[in-house]
Amino acid sequence: MPIRAAILGASGYTGAELIRLLLAHPQVSIAALTGDSQAGRGIGEVYPHLCFKGLPPLVTIEQVDFSAIDLVFCCLPHGTSQPVIARLPKHLKIIDLSADFRLADPEAYQQWYSHAHQAIDLQKEAVYGLTEIARGQIKKARLVANPGCYPTSAALPLIPLLKASVIDAKGIIIDAKSGVTGAGRSVKQANLFTEIDGGISAYGIAVHRHTPEIEQSLGCNVTFTPHLMPMNRGILSTIYVQLAGKNTAADLRAVLHKTYDHESFVHVLPEGAMPSTHQVRGTNDCVMNAFASRIPGQAILVSVIDNLVKGASGQAVQNMNVMFGWPETTGLQLTAVFP
Amino acid sequence: MPIRAAILGASGYTGAELIRLLLAHPQVSIAALTGDSQAGRGIGEVYPHLCFKGLPPLVTIEQVDFSAIDLVFCCLPHGTSQPVIARLPKHLKIIDLSADFRLADPEAYQQWYSHAHQAIDLQKEAVYGLTEIARGQIKKARLVANPGCYPTSAALPLIPLLKASVIDAKGIIIDAKSGVTGAGRSVKQANLFTEIDGGISAYGIAVHRHTPEIEQSLGCNVTFTPHLMPMNRGILSTIYVQLAGKNTAADLRAVLHKTYDHESFVHVLPEGAMPSTHQVRGTNDCVMNAFASRIPGQAILVSVIDNLVKGASGQAVQNMNVMFGWPETTGLQLTAVFP
Amino acid sequence: MPIRAAILGASGYTGAELIRLLLAHPQVSIAALTGDSQAGRGIGEVYPHLCFKGLPPLVTIEQVDFSAIDLVFCCLPHGTSQPVIARLPKHLKIIDLSADFRLADPEAYQQWYSHAHQAIDLQKEAVYGLTEIARGQIKKARLVANPGCYPTSAALPLIPLLKASVIDAKGIIIDAKSGVTGAGRSVKQANLFTEIDGGISAYGIAVHRHTPEIEQSLGCNVTFTPHLMPMNRGILSTIYVQLAGKNTAADLRAVLHKTYDHESFVHVLPEGAMPSTHQVRGTNDCVMNAFASRIPGQAILVSVIDNLVKGASGQAVQNMNVMFGWPETTGLQLTAVFP
Amino acid sequence: MPIRAAILGASGYTGAELIRLLLAHPQVSIAALTGDSQAGRGIGEVYPHLCFKGLPPLVTIEQVDFSAIDLVFCCLPHGTSQPVIARLPKHLKIIDLSADFRLADPEAYQQWYSHAHQAIDLQKEAVYGLTEIARGQIKKARLVANPGCYPTSAALPLIPLLKASVIDAKGIIIDAKSGVTGAGRSVKQANLFTEIDGGISAYGIAVHRHTPEIEQSLGCNVTFTPHLMPMNRGILSTIYVQLAGKNTAADLRAVLHKTYDHESFVHVLPEGAMPSTHQVRGTNDCVMNAFASRIPGQAILVSVIDNLVKGASGQAVQNMNVMFGWPETTGLQLTAVFP
Repeated sequence: MPIRAAILGASGYTGAELIRLLLAHPQVSIAALTGDSQAGRGIGEVYPHLCFKGLPPLVTIEQVDFSAIDLVFCCLPHGTSQPVIARLPKHLKIIDLSADFRLADPEAYQQWYSHAHQAIDLQKEAVYGLTEIARGQIKKARLVANPGCYPTSAALPLIPLLKASVIDAKGIIIDAKSGVTGAGRSVKQANLFTEIDGGISAYGIAVHRHTPEIEQSLGCNVTFTPHLMPMNRGILSTIYVQLAGKNTAADLRAVLHKTYDHESFVHVLPEGAMPSTHQVRGTNDCVMNAFASRIPGQAILVSVIDNLVKGASGQAVQNMNVMFGWPETTGLQLTAVFP
Repeated sequence: MPIRAAILGASGYTGAELIRLLLAHPQVSIAALTGDSQAGRGIGEVYPHLCFKGLPPLVTIEQVDFSAIDLVFCCLPHGTSQPVIARLPKHLKIIDLSADFRLADPEAYQQWYSHAHQAIDLQKEAVYGLTEIARGQIKKARLVANPGCYPTSAALPLIPLLKASVIDAKGIIIDAKSGVTGAGRSVKQANLFTEIDGGISAYGIAVHRHTPEIEQSLGCNVTFTPHLMPMNRGILSTIYVQLAGKNTAADLRAVLHKTYDHESFVHVLPEGAMPSTHQVRGTNDCVMNAFASRIPGQAILVSVIDNLVKGASGQAVQNMNVMFGWPETTGLQLTAVFP
Repeated sequence: MPIRAAILGASGYTGAELIRLLLAHPQVSIAALTGDSQAGRGIGEVYPHLCFKGLPPLVTIEQVDFSAIDLVFCCLPHGTSQPVIARLPKHLKIIDLSADFRLADPEAYQQWYSHAHQAIDLQKEAVYGLTEIARGQIKKARLVANPGCYPTSAALPLIPLLKASVIDAKGIIIDAKSGVTGAGRSVKQANLFTEIDGGISAYGIAVHRHTPEIEQSLGCNVTFTPHLMPMNRGILSTIYVQLAGKNTAADLRAVLHKTYDHESFVHVLPEGAMPSTHQVRGTNDCVMNAFASRIPGQAILVSVIDNLVKGASGQAVQNMNVMFGWPETTGLQLTAVFP
Repeated sequence: MPIRAAILGASGYTGAELIRLLLAHPQVSIAALTGDSQAGRGIGEVYPHLCFKGLPPLVTIEQVDFSAIDLVFCCLPHGTSQPVIARLPKHLKIIDLSADFRLADPEAYQQWYSHAHQAIDLQKEAVYGLTEIARGQIKKARLVANPGCYPTSAALPLIPLLKASVIDAKGIIIDAKSGVTGAGRSVKQANLFTEIDGGISAYGIAVHRHTPEIEQSLGCNVTFTPHLMPMNRGILSTIYVQLAGKNTAADLRAVLHKTYDHESFVHVLPEGAMPSTHQVRGTNDCVMNAFASRIPGQAILVSVIDNLVKGASGQAVQNMNVMFGWPETTGLQLTAVFP
């Protein structure tokens, strides 16, 4: 008997991507889809590519019978998940893909989101779901705060290097490049095809809300600069680090290999090989490498993920697999769609 | 026990796409990959996204032990498959993705390919593998000639309409738009990013080699104009037809519904809905619709496929499923990668 | 002394493109820019690429002192130009880039735009500004209705062929492919980068409002199917025609050469050469060719323009040059921006 | 009387872009175009968008009568310009767009290019043509080494800041993102549309040949990481710098304003405004800004150029204007082609 999952906020891109992944998952049936402004429509009207899949129609959250649900994926916009999740029945396991439960410190939350956290008790219970790092806690969690896309791409290479003390906590610079799906399906001029195709720009320099999330994961302040690329999927993070002591890029590579060679989704490339977002499109993989810099004492990390998969819905499925005790790769053995 | 498949010419895009699909197929193990100019290299060197999949290395055809192979997918360039397939052991089932065995008439072959067919006996045996149309023959076939991408997108809507005599065989115009993967991985100036991005063009007007293949499927001459689009995957065919007698676009839609509503991969959209290649990206689906024209007596068909899947490797897997008696959707229950 | 031009509705793409072209025009100074919802802002806030050009700020139409203006370009949305233009002082020359004055027949206007024409007297005075065809009338016009992008790309090859009676007026099919700027800067989900990149679709089959405009130019009914391409600029029209009598594609090419070889902006390619929108990006050129079809009695025309230039703002400048008696190429001797 | 210019290596993208710019330049006539492998063909066969421009055909260098030439633009591949330029008559002014004369130190050249410099005397004479910085020397130069695209985008913001001692020479990190035209028109698999569209990657980490050129301009070692973007034109450099003393980002902006506010092509944006490559596409502009970092003592610079214009052919024309004593903006008053 598959478990019964509900997706709240299924009309956004992370919702649609969850549907794609869950349709291929042998242990899950999609039992309910909500979309407030679209309630009453078939999901195939909102996403034509989901037209012939036998999916339930979009309803309001109030219309969902949660007694017949085992697991809730919450894909609501940032700032709106807290009250919704606070009202859900306690038998439910919950994976929240918004930023609402990611920051453990309510003051940090208030500072970056300009309003008080509305569910502080739940916040204490929430586990930050960077799967490879927090697997043990996720296994026991009822509420998982699914990591953001930029933080996932940065924390996966950096956490083991900091833990192994082969790099300094000071002076980490994360120059990240993202596809446009990271901006969601919200309708604004800046996201029109005509405004994006054929050009690139930086945005949110020094003020992007993923900054405190990255810093929480790493335990140190960082410089984080996101950029918008004319492509749909993928994040490439170029990370400049100071080497601790006499460590070299080769030592960094050794730590990364030791950390990840037994992992299913995180791959360290052979020396000198360059990660490309093409390698991970449509998959739950994170591919990374470390390079020597021209400047002594510095190294350069490059990591790539698909922001909608490992950076959102794929990691959510991975976390679900952990929470329910299934093999972690269930439903996620995907090969990149290339070209 | 899964069957053992060999892919000849695995270094092209249809080869890589076959690998993607077969890796998710429960009944097949990939036993050998050939690539003449790349023999000796790992497939991950040629396609980084296939790096961590435990695949066999690229070898020459001569190095393959065909006694340990059950099925051969031949992805060699047009004109080179005939001698290779002629030399293969007779116990093998073969699916040829090149154009070499598609034209039943050797004279037509000679006219369009400027050389005599080199395996005329095999040609007689070959079954043209448009699955939904020729399922019965494919089931018994040893050698299947897998259809071309443009012909698949055009024949699927047109064959049932011609068979039902609701359209005329005269005056069919197929205006087709294709992504760049249709041109393969061959390295030429016209296929550089810089030459293609941001613009479109027609090519091969009245002389494209898919013309006789379409005409063979339909049993009539057609006007076929291919165009190159700045995108990777997808074909959209806009087809102008003359209605037979007093038939209307609604009659065409009824015939298409009757033909395809019980099919797994071919979908007729609701009245007025426009097919988009986004709906089929990465899947084996063909989505179509018929529209009334402003001109009395004329109708307009629109059909979309992913040229690498239903137009090549996906239909090859579908044909394999038929040849081996497995459910036709095995390994092919894919949801479009959108966005 | 340059003339003083005002651009009404300067915050749309045709407005911005007009600014680009007029900045390079030696006879024109940009004296006023209006943008109702943006009034009070600098044009550089609305279009950063126009930031350092010394342009006047956006104002409301009411704020413009039209006594100090010689020429008005009206780039307002369809349906809103009529009352605005009706109220303008009579000393002004006006070039309207909307569809409001293009249809000579008020009944046709009402049928396609679902409301009565609001300035029927002005409509009688308006000259349809397909420059190469109507140069004599444009010279004397006070109000020019600048042609639509699709109609320009279709009418330029078709009008001389119909006039020369080398093709039939019956059975003309125009399969047109357009870049996304054709949809304007209006903010809607369908025009997001994420929804368009990597795929194509048809739209408005048999009901697109450019159909009556094309038919008015040609004097016959046509089949017109527009498609949306993942690129910013350019229209490629593939046109299927029936040859009159014993005419051939070569005869069509001869007529086109005779018509256009002395023109500055319309070019007929050598036999067999394929027009590409790359050739005309950023220019006022229309490039075309005619091809023999595989079907006897049929020929295929291909024509390309930049929808924002020859299909909108460039042709507007060309019309201005005619209206003011300047050499027609003034300010328009542009080379395509390629790649 | 316009001067007579020859373009050596006109069949590459910088050659084609030079033609586009010189066609609009009132003081220059294009007297000769060379292209060794394409000699004998019309430039319109090699670049269809240059078809109807009345340009001379491609010839070999040997076929050029240099006595009838005043100025040579050399657009030959790196490593091939030195012997060609060494043989040119001494009356010619020369602007070399290759890297051959950019490195003043022959040992640095040998180290980075793996062969000895072949024209050391000429090298001593060559002036590095970053126009805004070296205007005085360029005015008197006979041979100008036109800067590389990445170095231009990095040096324009950094040189004045270093000169004003508001930033440290140590620890400069340049994370640069480039469009694909930067790779030229050379035909290789990595540059196919199919390989680039929809994804991004880093390349040449710590070993890119523009590194010594940047370091020569700045007088200090830097970290330079180039990335390849799925777009045709544009470079965006994100530059991380350490502030000297108590300087702030505002101090950096003040220095940049003071340096560039009287310049025609270099623009400092208002505080907080983000440069985008869209703003400079097709123009000779460099747009920049400086931002405070979250990390005390650090600032972030962002600069954008069109790599084919200010990063190559446009700066070459600007240098020509200086060398011949014409107003520096002659032929270069371009507005960005947006969208």
